[in-house]
Amino acid sequence: MNFETIIKEIYQNIKLLEDSGELASYIPELAYINPESFGVHISTLDKNDFGIGNYTDKFSIQSIAKVLSLALAYRMVGESIWKRLGVEPSGNPFNSLTQLEVDNGIPRNPFINAGAIVISDILISNLENPREDFLAFVRSLSNNPNLDYSSEVAASEKAIGFRNVALCNFIKSFGNIENDPNKVLDFYFDLCSLEMTCKELSEAFLFLANNGRRTVDNLTILTKSEAKRINALMQTCGFYDESGEFAFKVGLPGKSGVGGGIIAVHPNQYTIAVWSPKLNKRGNSYKGMRFLEEFTTKSELSIF
Amino acid sequence: MNFETIIKEIYQNIKLLEDSGELASYIPELAYINPESFGVHISTLDKNDFGIGNYTDKFSIQSIAKVLSLALAYRMVGESIWKRLGVEPSGNPFNSLTQLEVDNGIPRNPFINAGAIVISDILISNLENPREDFLAFVRSLSNNPNLDYSSEVAASEKAIGFRNVALCNFIKSFGNIENDPNKVLDFYFDLCSLEMTCKELSEAFLFLANNGRRTVDNLTILTKSEAKRINALMQTCGFYDESGEFAFKVGLPGKSGVGGGIIAVHPNQYTIAVWSPKLNKRGNSYKGMRFLEEFTTKSELSIF
Amino acid sequence: MNFETIIKEIYQNIKLLEDSGELASYIPELAYINPESFGVHISTLDKNDFGIGNYTDKFSIQSIAKVLSLALAYRMVGESIWKRLGVEPSGNPFNSLTQLEVDNGIPRNPFINAGAIVISDILISNLENPREDFLAFVRSLSNNPNLDYSSEVAASEKAIGFRNVALCNFIKSFGNIENDPNKVLDFYFDLCSLEMTCKELSEAFLFLANNGRRTVDNLTILTKSEAKRINALMQTCGFYDESGEFAFKVGLPGKSGVGGGIIAVHPNQYTIAVWSPKLNKRGNSYKGMRFLEEFTTKSELSIF
Amino acid sequence: MNFETIIKEIYQNIKLLEDSGELASYIPELAYINPESFGVHISTLDKNDFGIGNYTDKFSIQSIAKVLSLALAYRMVGESIWKRLGVEPSGNPFNSLTQLEVDNGIPRNPFINAGAIVISDILISNLENPREDFLAFVRSLSNNPNLDYSSEVAASEKAIGFRNVALCNFIKSFGNIENDPNKVLDFYFDLCSLEMTCKELSEAFLFLANNGRRTVDNLTILTKSEAKRINALMQTCGFYDESGEFAFKVGLPGKSGVGGGIIAVHPNQYTIAVWSPKLNKRGNSYKGMRFLEEFTTKSELSIF
Repeated sequence: MNFETIIKEIYQNIKLLEDSGELASYIPELAYINPESFGVHISTLDKNDFGIGNYTDKFSIQSIAKVLSLALAYRMVGESIWKRLGVEPSGNPFNSLTQLEVDNGIPRNPFINAGAIVISDILISNLENPREDFLAFVRSLSNNPNLDYSSEVAASEKAIGFRNVALCNFIKSFGNIENDPNKVLDFYFDLCSLEMTCKELSEAFLFLANNGRRTVDNLTILTKSEAKRINALMQTCGFYDESGEFAFKVGLPGKSGVGGGIIAVHPNQYTIAVWSPKLNKRGNSYKGMRFLEEFTTKSELSIF
Repeated sequence: MNFETIIKEIYQNIKLLEDSGELASYIPELAYINPESFGVHISTLDKNDFGIGNYTDKFSIQSIAKVLSLALAYRMVGESIWKRLGVEPSGNPFNSLTQLEVDNGIPRNPFINAGAIVISDILISNLENPREDFLAFVRSLSNNPNLDYSSEVAASEKAIGFRNVALCNFIKSFGNIENDPNKVLDFYFDLCSLEMTCKELSEAFLFLANNGRRTVDNLTILTKSEAKRINALMQTCGFYDESGEFAFKVGLPGKSGVGGGIIAVHPNQYTIAVWSPKLNKRGNSYKGMRFLEEFTTKSELSIF
Repeated sequence: MNFETIIKEIYQNIKLLEDSGELASYIPELAYINPESFGVHISTLDKNDFGIGNYTDKFSIQSIAKVLSLALAYRMVGESIWKRLGVEPSGNPFNSLTQLEVDNGIPRNPFINAGAIVISDILISNLENPREDFLAFVRSLSNNPNLDYSSEVAASEKAIGFRNVALCNFIKSFGNIENDPNKVLDFYFDLCSLEMTCKELSEAFLFLANNGRRTVDNLTILTKSEAKRINALMQTCGFYDESGEFAFKVGLPGKSGVGGGIIAVHPNQYTIAVWSPKLNKRGNSYKGMRFLEEFTTKSELSIF
Repeated sequence: MNFETIIKEIYQNIKLLEDSGELASYIPELAYINPESFGVHISTLDKNDFGIGNYTDKFSIQSIAKVLSLALAYRMVGESIWKRLGVEPSGNPFNSLTQLEVDNGIPRNPFINAGAIVISDILISNLENPREDFLAFVRSLSNNPNLDYSSEVAASEKAIGFRNVALCNFIKSFGNIENDPNKVLDFYFDLCSLEMTCKELSEAFLFLANNGRRTVDNLTILTKSEAKRINALMQTCGFYDESGEFAFKVGLPGKSGVGGGIIAVHPNQYTIAVWSPKLNKRGNSYKGMRFLEEFTTKSELSIF
């Protein structure tokens, strides 16, 4: 299918939309972004890549990084990571503590903050130099040495991250954090501060559309089963309490971040990254959600 | 792909499994079922149908009927039904009242009991003879006049259905039930008492794998978009608080019932129905879940 | 102390207050009450009774009846009633179902609706003619044959009592209701429809200020310990999620009803009944709460 | 009344009781206490003081200190402290985070951990040297220079206080903590480490039985209204989710600590302190609760 025509047409329509959302205000550094930014990039297994708008601008991928940290932890530890966290949608906002209290410190899934904090703890226990090693892993996914953390964003988030400090210490009180909470949080804030362009993001995620193998050289990052399972998790849990809506309207596994980015994966076909920083009420990119909804409707290519 | 060989092999393995589950004890009538029953039937778009074990025995489809009542309501009322209920996984057991209290009587999705009760109310408001008209709809899906309710099961469930009486009256107290709660519940218990064989079940659901069109004559039951959306809902909400697990391990949209049946849909390919009455701790068929997990692993054909 | 002077003064002040509350709208029959009604009556152990305003007008005592039904059940069954319900404040609104779900159908205390419904069930199991026998008990408390139910109010509440139907069936689903839910609810709606004047109400409750003995003839209604325990329960649970506030500001055991009545008990001294139908946001009489706050402040006679 | 005889008799009975409880294990330093310790001391307004058992041994008063920190904050800031926290029983365990999430960071009352942490924050904002000034206040209550913190207990609690770190940062995330969470927690752990004997405890609390005035010299610590309100709060909220039970069975305002101490106040009459370190399932002294229940039953002197 010729995605280029469809993407161009939808991009023009959505660009004109009055943008009813808000910038993520709770991380001060993110408030400096141009709110009109809007970029899209698709990477396909048959190499018909295409980008439009601000697709080569770097942005803070934030929670999208949770998929990559899960991938590395899954690769290193295997199925035993599920002793430490679940695979069920939470039915609660991303930073809720209520569910943890009911479930004795076992986060519902790896994509709510609590789950991603546990994954960070697992990586710290298993990596020699967590910060450097994780970055090396992300760079290797698409052979891209230009990826890096933003120390400004990490510092900005750390300075006001009381809710995450609460989450990490709460989980620790149940015995489900092995390392010093401050160390775990430092690493967690680093992860979330990763910066990528739409092009880089879609390329880095392409292994998940390719049954776990890197496209350049067919190197196995994850087994086929592991890749499928991460896709399933993105489908059921990737958008906090809007996950059902995304499956319903877009019909692809995906993950959003408060930086305004969204990645979606069509297994065996393509990945598509969208970025527009204004967020809807549930914290997902307003234009990004709208774009992807139109995209799977027009292309008639959801997984369902 | 030759499903027959795979299904035979897995069926033999799973049949030997010690069955750790329990019969649904809360509906007295269901306790009379032979707990060793185990049947499987696949219906494919290219007509390579195959069944094994007790695939021609009738069983109580129970909550699986919620997909069919949703289909009819969706067909009649369109997108406006989502004013009355949501599309998000609930994160709670199937008959919880807590979420309703938080959400002012709007059920999280159509597959928890609360949601299915609201769908029953919508059908009563829109059908002349709800009981007869719904049965006619289900029969028409696969041109099968042999489908019917079980008045014994409906009566049995009604006699002890205090939790559902509570749910219906609770929703009514928020104004989200239009008709007399007793009438709504009678119809709801009828729906859940539908009896089908694995063969009939997989045939009746085939329109959902076929973009909403009946396979015999290509008649449109639902639009392509509506069919995809129902599949998405089954994926995120079809197994109560085990929905994430099913997506993770099986990777297909599906729906289970406490009668021990499970239907799964592979869009554009096939539907598969499994029946084994002993249930795991979360109320889903123990052997059914195991069978489908093996099936998508061996066939390497999940949607992810 | 001369209560008359204090009561007169406070009554005049509070009467002038703009009444910011609302009539209980959810029971249609209660909406016909004159919203400006305002009565007060004190009954003391040393027989210095005094009334002012509409203290001889009948009103619907509603939830205040829950104290009287508890008293009769406690008298008949003794401490074993606490197997069926608790003695803790609920921290939730009066008709919440959430707590019941957590606590497996054991209501937190006898003064939330769930608890009063369980008490009704206990009375039905223990009385030959529940409706008549309970009325006889209430009449006997103050030798007053003029007390009766209002069949209009009971019917009015029953017609829209979906939340209470939900509560009763929900508890039944946990096995904590012995009788037919419809029978239990009919009796419960009857109880709540009792009509009394401020004078009658303060007289009927005087046995709780008198260590369980009727003042006219010293007849023992409850043991001293039982009477003290009911007072303690009124203190901690008498005003739903405003119980702490009432203890804090008024400092007496008491119970309110959505008809706008409040009874308060000063052990070994007096009972005082206040009635003003407009309710504050938490469902308690606006002027009634204000009056009692002023009264214990001015008289410097709280139990604390 | 001659309390001495009653206390001696009950003390002997309760001492013989098999002690079914457990030492507070979560604070390592508290596990070194002799579990058989058992002391009682009553201080009366008419100077009939009496002690028995280990009533002159120091123990960690833990949460009992929350009443004293509330008293100082109330004295300094007045009624405006109630903008920062509520006066309602919580219906949840002492260290729950769920309620805070619902109530946007406003603790239900000053005696759950969340509330006491907010009070600590208020004191830090209002005292020049919080640690020293608070100690001076406590010493002044009974003119007792022998009272002090235990730095071992404070350090022990701090080392494992992840749940409290979570609580404080969670409240901070809602904007209801003004100071640095680490500073607030250090002060909070200090408060809880106060050590007193039963004798010292009952003497320090006597001002609450005396309408807010110190007994030695009639110095006003709190106004009569403030003292009554703190008593009311102890009645409704002093024993976490066993507060209703304590009101029901003992019938006096009181406060417990995980060190095994309990203080109870009979307004206008006496204070009584009990200490026995083994705790019941809800975290209150097993023998302490039993002793006080017997004491008010035998003396027939509850406030109800």
